[in-house]
Parts: sequence; structure tokens; C-alpha cells
Amino acid sequence: MTKTVNHVTKSILNVGEMASGAKLTVPVYRFAGQSDAPSVYIQANMHGAEVQGNAVIYQLLEQLRNLHILGDITLVPYANPVGCNHKNGEYTLGRFDPITGVNWNRMYHHNPDLVVPFVQDNVDASEQEIKAKFKQVLLDDIDQQLDHNMYGLTTGQRIAYQLQKMAHQADLVLDLHTGPISSKHLYCPEYARASASYFNIEHTLLIPNEFDGALDEATFCPWWSLAQAYAAKGRPLVLNKESFTVELGSQEQIDLDVALDDANSVLTYLSYKGVIKGVSKGANNGANKGEENTSEQFVPAQITRYACYLKDYKAFYSPMGGMVDYLAEFGVPLPAGEPLARILRMDNYGDGDALHYISLDKEVIPILHFASASVNQGTELYKVFTEFFTL
Amino acid sequence: MTKTVNHVTKSILNVGEMASGAKLTVPVYRFAGQSDAPSVYIQANMHGAEVQGNAVIYQLLEQLRNLHILGDITLVPYANPVGCNHKNGEYTLGRFDPITGVNWNRMYHHNPDLVVPFVQDNVDASEQEIKAKFKQVLLDDIDQQLDHNMYGLTTGQRIAYQLQKMAHQADLVLDLHTGPISSKHLYCPEYARASASYFNIEHTLLIPNEFDGALDEATFCPWWSLAQAYAAKGRPLVLNKESFTVELGSQEQIDLDVALDDANSVLTYLSYKGVIKGVSKGANNGANKGEENTSEQFVPAQITRYACYLKDYKAFYSPMGGMVDYLAEFGVPLPAGEPLARILRMDNYGDGDALHYISLDKEVIPILHFASASVNQGTELYKVFTEFFTL
Amino acid sequence: MTKTVNHVTKSILNVGEMASGAKLTVPVYRFAGQSDAPSVYIQANMHGAEVQGNAVIYQLLEQLRNLHILGDITLVPYANPVGCNHKNGEYTLGRFDPITGVNWNRMYHHNPDLVVPFVQDNVDASEQEIKAKFKQVLLDDIDQQLDHNMYGLTTGQRIAYQLQKMAHQADLVLDLHTGPISSKHLYCPEYARASASYFNIEHTLLIPNEFDGALDEATFCPWWSLAQAYAAKGRPLVLNKESFTVELGSQEQIDLDVALDDANSVLTYLSYKGVIKGVSKGANNGANKGEENTSEQFVPAQITRYACYLKDYKAFYSPMGGMVDYLAEFGVPLPAGEPLARILRMDNYGDGDALHYISLDKEVIPILHFASASVNQGTELYKVFTEFFTL
Amino acid sequence: MTKTVNHVTKSILNVGEMASGAKLTVPVYRFAGQSDAPSVYIQANMHGAEVQGNAVIYQLLEQLRNLHILGDITLVPYANPVGCNHKNGEYTLGRFDPITGVNWNRMYHHNPDLVVPFVQDNVDASEQEIKAKFKQVLLDDIDQQLDHNMYGLTTGQRIAYQLQKMAHQADLVLDLHTGPISSKHLYCPEYARASASYFNIEHTLLIPNEFDGALDEATFCPWWSLAQAYAAKGRPLVLNKESFTVELGSQEQIDLDVALDDANSVLTYLSYKGVIKGVSKGANNGANKGEENTSEQFVPAQITRYACYLKDYKAFYSPMGGMVDYLAEFGVPLPAGEPLARILRMDNYGDGDALHYISLDKEVIPILHFASASVNQGTELYKVFTEFFTL
Repeated sequence: MTKTVNHVTKSILNVGEMASGAKLTVPVYRFAGQSDAPSVYIQANMHGAEVQGNAVIYQLLEQLRNLHILGDITLVPYANPVGCNHKNGEYTLGRFDPITGVNWNRMYHHNPDLVVPFVQDNVDASEQEIKAKFKQVLLDDIDQQLDHNMYGLTTGQRIAYQLQKMAHQADLVLDLHTGPISSKHLYCPEYARASASYFNIEHTLLIPNEFDGALDEATFCPWWSLAQAYAAKGRPLVLNKESFTVELGSQEQIDLDVALDDANSVLTYLSYKGVIKGVSKGANNGANKGEENTSEQFVPAQITRYACYLKDYKAFYSPMGGMVDYLAEFGVPLPAGEPLARILRMDNYGDGDALHYISLDKEVIPILHFASASVNQGTELYKVFTEFFTL
Repeated sequence: MTKTVNHVTKSILNVGEMASGAKLTVPVYRFAGQSDAPSVYIQANMHGAEVQGNAVIYQLLEQLRNLHILGDITLVPYANPVGCNHKNGEYTLGRFDPITGVNWNRMYHHNPDLVVPFVQDNVDASEQEIKAKFKQVLLDDIDQQLDHNMYGLTTGQRIAYQLQKMAHQADLVLDLHTGPISSKHLYCPEYARASASYFNIEHTLLIPNEFDGALDEATFCPWWSLAQAYAAKGRPLVLNKESFTVELGSQEQIDLDVALDDANSVLTYLSYKGVIKGVSKGANNGANKGEENTSEQFVPAQITRYACYLKDYKAFYSPMGGMVDYLAEFGVPLPAGEPLARILRMDNYGDGDALHYISLDKEVIPILHFASASVNQGTELYKVFTEFFTL
Repeated sequence: MTKTVNHVTKSILNVGEMASGAKLTVPVYRFAGQSDAPSVYIQANMHGAEVQGNAVIYQLLEQLRNLHILGDITLVPYANPVGCNHKNGEYTLGRFDPITGVNWNRMYHHNPDLVVPFVQDNVDASEQEIKAKFKQVLLDDIDQQLDHNMYGLTTGQRIAYQLQKMAHQADLVLDLHTGPISSKHLYCPEYARASASYFNIEHTLLIPNEFDGALDEATFCPWWSLAQAYAAKGRPLVLNKESFTVELGSQEQIDLDVALDDANSVLTYLSYKGVIKGVSKGANNGANKGEENTSEQFVPAQITRYACYLKDYKAFYSPMGGMVDYLAEFGVPLPAGEPLARILRMDNYGDGDALHYISLDKEVIPILHFASASVNQGTELYKVFTEFFTL
Repeated sequence: MTKTVNHVTKSILNVGEMASGAKLTVPVYRFAGQSDAPSVYIQANMHGAEVQGNAVIYQLLEQLRNLHILGDITLVPYANPVGCNHKNGEYTLGRFDPITGVNWNRMYHHNPDLVVPFVQDNVDASEQEIKAKFKQVLLDDIDQQLDHNMYGLTTGQRIAYQLQKMAHQADLVLDLHTGPISSKHLYCPEYARASASYFNIEHTLLIPNEFDGALDEATFCPWWSLAQAYAAKGRPLVLNKESFTVELGSQEQIDLDVALDDANSVLTYLSYKGVIKGVSKGANNGANKGEENTSEQFVPAQITRYACYLKDYKAFYSPMGGMVDYLAEFGVPLPAGEPLARILRMDNYGDGDALHYISLDKEVIPILHFASASVNQGTELYKVFTEFFTL
């Protein structure tokens, strides 16, 4: 393969303004694909403290310049210019609008009423037409919210909707996040389960067709519902629309070397989907063996991939206030009764128990824990896979 | 009437603990009623900055000592010991858990699945039995959440559920809040609309049977649903369960003189409901005229009471960032096109418009506005009644 | 007088950048004077929540367009683009860098070592030369900090020093602030006491030649020290350098009508100093009566002006935690023993004192109080003039 | 040696109250010494996020129960009940009062005017008398501030002064802190330099006799000044008063295993000072070799101990905004020109430099870096030893 240096175009998206009039802007990078391959939208840093995705986008840009690009690729670092710059003390206020408390990743738009009339009107349209026309319906619906709303939009909606417009243009959507202190894990729609094996990520959450405000849901739920509606009419559709939230590890950290690994993981998936040239080898099953264009470059890692359904992904809230020595190793099954953490309660020293070991009565895989040692009773201590299985 | 000095009992409710082990406690005051009159639960300050309700409870306690009390009355100031004490800069972080961003008044519990089996099992029970047994069902359901939950509860749920247990014991529930900078207004379930005229509050929001996490909804929705379920079986029930969120004006302020007025407003409602002796005169209709025990003490004020449905209570988000000179008077219809505010944009002086007048294209009643002059594009500038009418 | 429409030039000053790379910018407006009259520097909003000064600058700009301007005038709204846009909950985090806690108005630069060598080197220079050369010394010293510092500057220093450079260019400096909830008051160097009577502000703090980090001190202390050093050598100098911090009332509020009054107050002072044409009449003493150019336009208000020395300006810290009903009227002498506030302690109801009246044992003038009703033990409740007198 | 189980007494110190009336309390643990050996005061967690000291106190308590204790030992975990429990987002607002921004460890009391009159009055007193009487002077001075202050104290002063009273009772004071993300290091008064070698800490800052508000300074500066004043009168005194700030590593973390190491480090110092039985061997010089009671238990580690003077401990402020990949290893000399960090600026990708390497022009030892990857221009990026040497 003759490598070419691809041209990346940069534009600046205006997503809002602050009290001083300062513009809120987001940089947008685009590679034009050379074919009708699937198009891709990748964003990072919607939560202010979750910065590692920016480094992954940096490494993706560096690599994509020298790869054979087939589909359009749009990359958006610093997706949330409010959250990105908002400090409370030394840390970045990560997850929510500091004024309203609303989670920045629960502000996307979903209109469940679009599907039924669309199917009625386009019952016999070609698959190609359906994809093009329904995409336009989604885009028009967002434009309606953005531009024709007498009472306006919240700060977060204005940001989210403009990002969502770009995401709706793409077939494949990756929203790069991190946990607080966390192992890598992947939110994957149940129907796209096969794709999870092309990411070098050991833990996958399989999520249902339910909209809870996040970008992945906002972009795959309409298509899932559309496919179901056509299927109910006896017409199965293969839409090849996939959206993932990729949790890259811990927040408040940039590591460019790890970012290169994660960029390769993303490229392995994109290679598998035909967005870049070089079809990756199947992760576990060798399904693609023997194909012509097989590239050794983007081969998924041979790792055990654990999964659980979203309903079985449990937040464990601290049964007491105290200061936590987190003990459980991430990503490895923890037998029932083994300690997740021990909690120090110096106020009890001498006339109570100063040290408490905390465990669960069932086997779990610890995925992430709270960002601070200091917890109140009821602080989310750990999130764990329960009822997990291997992909 | 011979006035008696009533005894108030005080207890301390433990609702959680902080990282240092410091206990989160809430003081609870109780008057025992002398009959089977309706019982009452009143709390204040669930949102940290909304402190005026504590002053109203102070004035209620002072007055109730000398009134003829028929029903049990429970009063809970400082309902949220986290929010109450949480400062960010000079101000109290009012509305949400500082760790998670979740609104403290969206954490109550509602289980819509309780009604259908209950009605099946108690189709022929007496009204008295139904009320007693369903109350127990609600209490048991809360206890189940509090005590039998392997993964625990959030900090806010633990507080909210314990308050809710007390609220479920009562027939009438008043949750005392304030707006940011606000006129007084009342959230009233649609079915209890007649009661709105017994509060000295000029603006009433009529809210539907939909649970969105708040205490008023958590306590009236189950009963409304129960009544509907019995009605669907051809058995109309009069349950006399009412819950209100009373918005006392602006946050971050204590005014004991105004609190006395608001205490009298609450007592007027309680008198009307027979919780304290002395039946109030009807507000608009004189319905109770000629009754024996009529007391002149708690007569609702003769004021114009505006109302609108919750769906017509609109948040207006700032169309631009800037610094706001709020102009519109609260509580008075504002004609279409008249300015709500003017927004200063000094960055535009000389090469743009430094002053922008903001208006709506329809008549509204401004009810509250944002707490600060500095707003981002998308900050909730005003909340207004639209499609309003008089009660 | 034939009024002319003056030309204002606008420039954008780059004072820093955020994590996303977003530039921190400050708009700068300038009128060129038509003579060698004193020059003026006016800035507003160094503390994020203290926004009213922006409205005063707006009204100044509107008025100055039509006045006869003799001296150069520089006006800088939104002086602190970090603080201006930084929300914690609904309020603007006013007074300090959210990362470090350092008060934004304690970051200016003062080098006490400049005076002695300067006087030695310029002992016989003309007054004109001294003013020009020492100004350059101050500017060079700031440039040294900004540009030749291996370890860099804090975020706040970088902003402050760039503003200070502009301020050092001027003879008269006004830094527009507000209190939390506050009456208007003026910080005035002791030597400039006569000028205080040309502002329409009833309360003046007379401050000594001590640098504590603020802009007014940073700009007048060097000149005061210089004058003292020359005086010690038997050479009295009249430098006509004055700096004031003008406290415009309460924070978090914009009122364009009040701002017009305050703009007129500033113009009255500028008129008195000969920056704009029309010499104002003396405030209390009629000293300027009979002068030729007397204009009726900018006559100081006939009001009682109270003053006290900075050492007698006392912060009163709350003796207890609780919720405060602020009672004392601002700006009026409060006799010893009269209540400043009453503090509600609902947790004590029934078994302690629920209401506490707070007073001082000496006569004071309350100037400002805390922004919230909720205070901890030790929160600054009031600031008061003690040992006050009239100007 | 027959080991005894020592009795620890626990008391609760009331240091303030919050808006709700909630008491701010601090647990205090005390071992009574069996002789007139030096007494010790150890506190932890004055900065909210710096929690590891609590774990060290836990391990100290566990060990001290079984050691031979000669001097009184007071241990205070959770020294700051406001800071300890104050979250902004997921993190603990560490370093300053959330209302005022004042650093919690800059609020202690120092009165430089006590020394001169004391020396005049006690010029011929015995060393024993001087120590006892001057201690009482310090205690009385604190009491004066706490109890006889018409205008009250700030929240932080009230906490700090009460802790300081306990610290003044002791000869040796250890204030346990942490950096943000940090190596272990020790703040040591210049005169106590020999003691630094008895802590297992590789980096020592030698600090002068200047009060900047911290506990170590507040407790050693008066004694240092006293000794100097007597020395100036020709009377050298050996007061054996030492205070240290011990920086245990990174904030927001509890590690009980590491805490055991740090407890042993503290015990090694206490053994050396004769507070507990068993004289430690000299760290570098073997000075104590051959002494009778030599215990092998608490021998200082054989490590290279670097030191620098406080004036050479430099904060390096970020020359740009961006997202930081911290590169430099802590505690090891970094040659001039070698990168401390690389800063990602995705907004510059394509039309500027997206990656910037940051270095200094001189050799330094990096000691700590900022807690977050996201920095503004001017954020304190690193603190480094310059002009360092070995102890």
C-alpha cells in the first residue's frame, strides 16, 4: 500500500456565549473519505474532567494522516467548552452544568414520535432512500429545536444539539469519556455486540434501546426503533448505524502514550467497519480470515472480554461516611465476600470500630471507583459488573 | 374559645453521615392532635438556599402553641442538613447535591406498581381501611428501600426517604421552598384546586398526576392513582390527601415578619381543612358562611389568584450571554412585546449593540427570575405563566 | 458650550488563556484628551460578581461622547474574564481565583525598593521630569515581571499586571467594585481626602500608605512614597496622582438607571479634577464659587459624608451559626446595643433559644452585610464604620 | 523490654458551628507520658483533601498502644471539620475556606510583640522557668484572641486557634499534610536541620524564622525569636522546641499500608527525641552508636536526603493553557532543558503547535505537580527544588 498524507480540514463551531460575551467554540477536524464507506463522528471531553479523549483524537489525527481513508471522519476534541474550563478548586467540575447540576451527557435530543409516521410514509422506499431520508428527518428535528423555539434552549442543550447534528451525519459514532478512577470499558448497543470485540477494551456494557439523554443513545435509538418498526412490518433492515461510549480510564489525566494504544483500538474498529483500508482480523473467531485485504496493522488484541447488561451494572453506594482505602482490583472478578474497600473512621477510634471492611454478597467485577477517598454515606463508591459473562 | 398552650415534642432524626463521621441530623417538632382530624406534615429547606421556610416554621410553632389543634402536626425545619450548610463562595449551593448534581427535590420515591395489586386485594374494603392499609403499603415500600437494598442508597435518597416516611404518615403535606428571586407561588395538584384559594398566594400552578421526583408528587400521586383505580372500578373515593409545594419568595433571605404572614396563610389553609379549630371563610365563594365555628382569625385574603397548568409554566432561556437588568414586575400580566429585561453587552460597545431588550411574543405573568445578573446564553432567565386564568 | 461627539476607540487586550486554549480577553475603550489635563483609568468587574461597574462604564461612555474631554480617559469593563464567567451554582464566584482561593484584587504588583534609588538619581529633576521618569520606572518594573520571569506568573497576576500597566499610564485611577449586600462607599487615600467630597457617596474610608495587593494601593502607594521621600529631602511635590476603589452597592445586580447616577458622580469628580470641562462646585464649602468655567452639570450632591480610617473599619464575625434576619439600616449610625441582626436557630427551638439578637457595645455605621442569610460561626456578618466622623 | 498496652483517652473538641447549628467537632486522642520527656502534638487533615495523615494517626495509635511512651502525646485527626467534609463535585475542596478563599493553614496566630517584654521581665529566669512561663504567655495570648474579641473571629481562626492551643502545650509539633500529586517532603526549621535525618523522607525544605500563617511557623517562630533575643543578651538557650509540616504524598488518597511506613518514620523521629523508649541510630553519622538503650526498631532509613532553602523552592506556573501530560519523575534531579511536561493544545492542531514540551533552564528536583491535567495559563504546574544539596 502506498501511504498518502491526508488533508485534514479544521473549522470552528460556535456553540454559545458566556456572560462576558466570550464565545464558546469547538474545533472540528474533518477528513474527506474517498468512497461511500461508512462515515464516522468522534468527540471527546463532553465531561470537563474527562480529557484523555483529546489525546486519543490527537493520536488519531496523527495516524489518520498516513492511512488510507475510505469514509468521512469528523473528530471533535474539547466538545464542551464550558465544562472543559470550569475549575472548582484544583479539579475540573466534571459531570454537570455548574449552574443547574444537569449532567452534560444527558442533554441530547430524542424524539420518539418521528419513527411511526416516517415508516408509514416510506414503507416501500429503498434502504438507501430510507437511510438518507430518515437522516434528514433527524437533522430537521434538531434544527427545529435549535432555531424555532420561542423559549430557547439551555446552555447544555445548545452545545449538545450542535454536536448531535454532526453526529447524525455519520454512520458510526464514538463518544470518548472516562470514568472517575476507572478501568477501560465500552458502552455498546446490544445489537452491535459483535463490534465490541474489535476494540481493545476488556469490559463491555450492553445497553438497550432506551434513551436516557446520552449521545450514543441519541444517535442509535432512532435507528434501532426505525429498524424495529420496519421489522414489525416484515421488512428487516441492515442499517449499519452504531454508536459507542468509550470509557478510556481515569479522568483528570493526559497520557499521550496510552492515547496511542487507544487510538489504535479505535482504528481497529474503523478498519473492521471499512472506514479505513485494511480489514482487521476477527478478535476471537477468526471470521475474516482469508480475506484479501487483510492488514496486520489493526488486529484486535487477544484478551478476555467481559460483558454485562446495563441493568446488571450496579452502583454501590457507601453504607457509611468515612475515608476509603480502595482495595479491589479493577477488571478482575472479585469473589463474594472479598473486600472492595476498607473505610477508616477515626472518630470511632477507641469507642467503636475505626476500620470497616466493605464487601458484597455476590461475585462482581469492579470497573471504577469514586475519585476521592472521602465519602459521605451514600456516595457512589464503586460501579461493578454483576451477572457478567465473556463475549 | 379558651386557648391552651400546646406541648410540642422535639426529636432528632439521623439522616446520614459525612466523611468525618459527622452525623447529619434533622430536628422534628410534633404537636399531637386532640381528635381524628387530618394530620399534617410541613418541612422546609430541602434546597439549601431556600431558608425562609424555617422562619415560617418558627412562626407556626409560636402560633400553634396557642391554637386549638385537632390533627397531628409535624414540622421539620432544616430538612436537608447537607444542602443547608453547603457554601460555594458566599452563597449556599442551593438546588443539588454538590457531588452528583442531582436536584435534592428529585430524589423521593414513587412506586407506580403498588396500586393495581392493592386495589385487587382491597376492592371491597371500607374507605377507612383503604386509607390505613394503603398508607402502610407506602411506608413498607419506603422501608424496603431504606433497609433492604444490597447496593445502598444515594446520600440524597437516604435523606429524602426518611422525610418521606414522615410525610406519608400525614394527610396534608406542605413542602416549603422558595424561588431564586421570586414572587410567592403555589404548586397544587389539579384535583385540590379548591384549596389553593385558602392560601394567601396570588399564583397557583396546577400540576398533573405525574411523578418527577418531588415530595409533593411522591405523596399525592399514589393516592390520586389509587382513587383513579377505584373510580375505574366504579367506586369513587374521597381520600382528602393533599400535598403542596409552597414557594415563599426569594432564596438566601430570612425575614421573620414576612414569615408571620406566611404562617398565617398556612394556618388559614389548615383551619379550612379542620386541622386547627376555627373554620375559615371561603375565599371567593363564601361556601362556609353561616357555619357555627367560623373564626375570623384565618380568613383568606381577598386577592386575585392567577393560575396556569404546569405545561404552560414556561422557562425562558437567555437568548444571549450578558449582564441582565431585570425589568418585568413579578405577578402582573406583561403584554406581548413588553420587555422582560435588558441585557448589557459591553464587549459589543462601539461595534455592535451594547444593550438588548428582551421580550416575548405573548402575554405572560413573570413569576421568578435568575438569581444573578450574569447569565450565559441558555441560562434560565425567567419563569412565566402562560395561558393563565383566575381561580 | 457647543457639544461635540467624541470618538471612542476600542481595542481587545489578551490577558491569558484557559485549558481549552480559549483566549481571555478584555475590551478597552479610550477617549483621547484634547489637552495636557490629567488622564484617567477606570475599570470594573475585577471581582466576578461585582457587575454594576460595567453598567456605570456603559453610562460613562454614553455621556462622554457628548462632553468636552480634556484628559485621556481609558475605560475597561469586564476586567477579569475568568471571574466574570465563573459560576458556582446560580451565583458568580466573586472574590477569588477558584483554583487557588487568592482574592483577585490582591494580586497587583508593588515594589517598595524603587523609590530610594530613584530619588537619589533624580534629586534635582523637575517635577515634570520626575513624573514622567518615575512612571516609566513603574511601567518597566511591571514589564520585568510580565516578560522576564523564568518561573512565570499566576493566572491572576498576569491579568492584574496587564491592567496595572494601563492604570500606571493614568493620573487618576478608579476601580469600580461593589460589596456583597452593601451601601455605596469609597476607599480614598488619606492625602486625597478633599476629593471624596466630589463623589456622591455618603461613606468614605481613608486608607493609609500600605500596600495590601489592591489596584488603588498599587497605583497610589508608589507616588505617595515618592512624595514622602522627596519631602524628607526638603522638597515637597504635588503629584496630583489619586486612586480610589468605588464600591457601588450590592453585587450580582445590574441597574442601568442607578448606573447613570453613579456615572454622574464619577463625572463630577472628573470635572473637579479638570479631566472634563466644567469645574464642579465645591461639595460642602462652596470653595469654587465665582470661578469662570463653573458648570451646573456636575455639582456634588449636598449630603452628609461620613468617614472613618481603615483601621476603624471593622468586620464583625458571626458569634454563632444560624440563619440571619439582617435588621440594621445601612449608612445610618446605629446606637450601641441596638440590634444589627437576629439569628434564627431552629435546632434550639423548645430546648434553647431559637432567636438571638446581635448587637455591638458601641455606636457604628453598618456599611454592608453578608450575601446570604445562612452563616457559620465566624462568617463575616457585617462591616461597620467605628470612630466615624463627617468630612 | 516488657511491652505494655497504653491507655489512650479520647475527647471531643468543639471548634465551631454551621448554619444549621450543627456542631463542628474534632476528636482528640491522648497518651500520658510516664516521665518529663518531651511532649508531642500531631494533627492531620487541616486541608480537606489531605487525608492520608488520618491513616498515619491510625497507625500511630495502633503502634503506640504497645510502645514505651515517655512523653505526653496528643493526636488529632480530622483537624478541620469544615474542609474535611466539603465537596465541590467529586473532589474535596482542599486548601481554603469555601466562603472566603483563605488558606486554612494560613490562619494561625503569631504575636511578634510578646518576646521583647518577656525577655526583659525574665532575663535571669532559669531555662525551666523560661519554658514554662513563655508557654503560658503564648497560651494566654491565644485565649485573649478566642475569648475577648468584640468583633469575633473568622471560622478558620476559631478552628486554628483551638488547635494551636493544644500545639503550644507540646514541645514537638507535627502537622501532617500532603501535596496535590506529590512526593513526600518535610518542612523543617533551619535550626532543626539535624532532626530531618530521622524522618524517612527524601526531601527537606529548610524554612526561616518568618511567620506566614502556618501551624509549624506559629509554634516554632515564637521560640526561635525568644532564643535569639536571649542570645542577643549573651545567653544561649537550648529550648528543644521543634515543629514540622510533614507532606505525606498525594491528596485524595488513603493507603493504610503506606501509612504504616509513615507512622514508623514519625516514631523514628520520636524515638530519637526520647518521646518513646528506644534511641534510634543516627541516620548518616552514627552519632548515637554505642549508647545503651539503642533499639533496632526505629532506625532511620539509609537514603539520600535532598534539601533546599525555602527561598529556592520554586513554583513554576504554566506558560500556557492546555492539557498536561506530566513527564518528570518526582524526587530525582532533572537536568536543565529536560522536559517537565508536554502540553496538548488541540485547538492549535493543523494551524499551530498542538504539542509543547516544557522545561527549565536549570537543574531542579521536581517535588509535586498540579492535581489536574487541565491548566490555565498561570496555573501552578510544578514545585521544584533549586540550588539543592544533600543533608
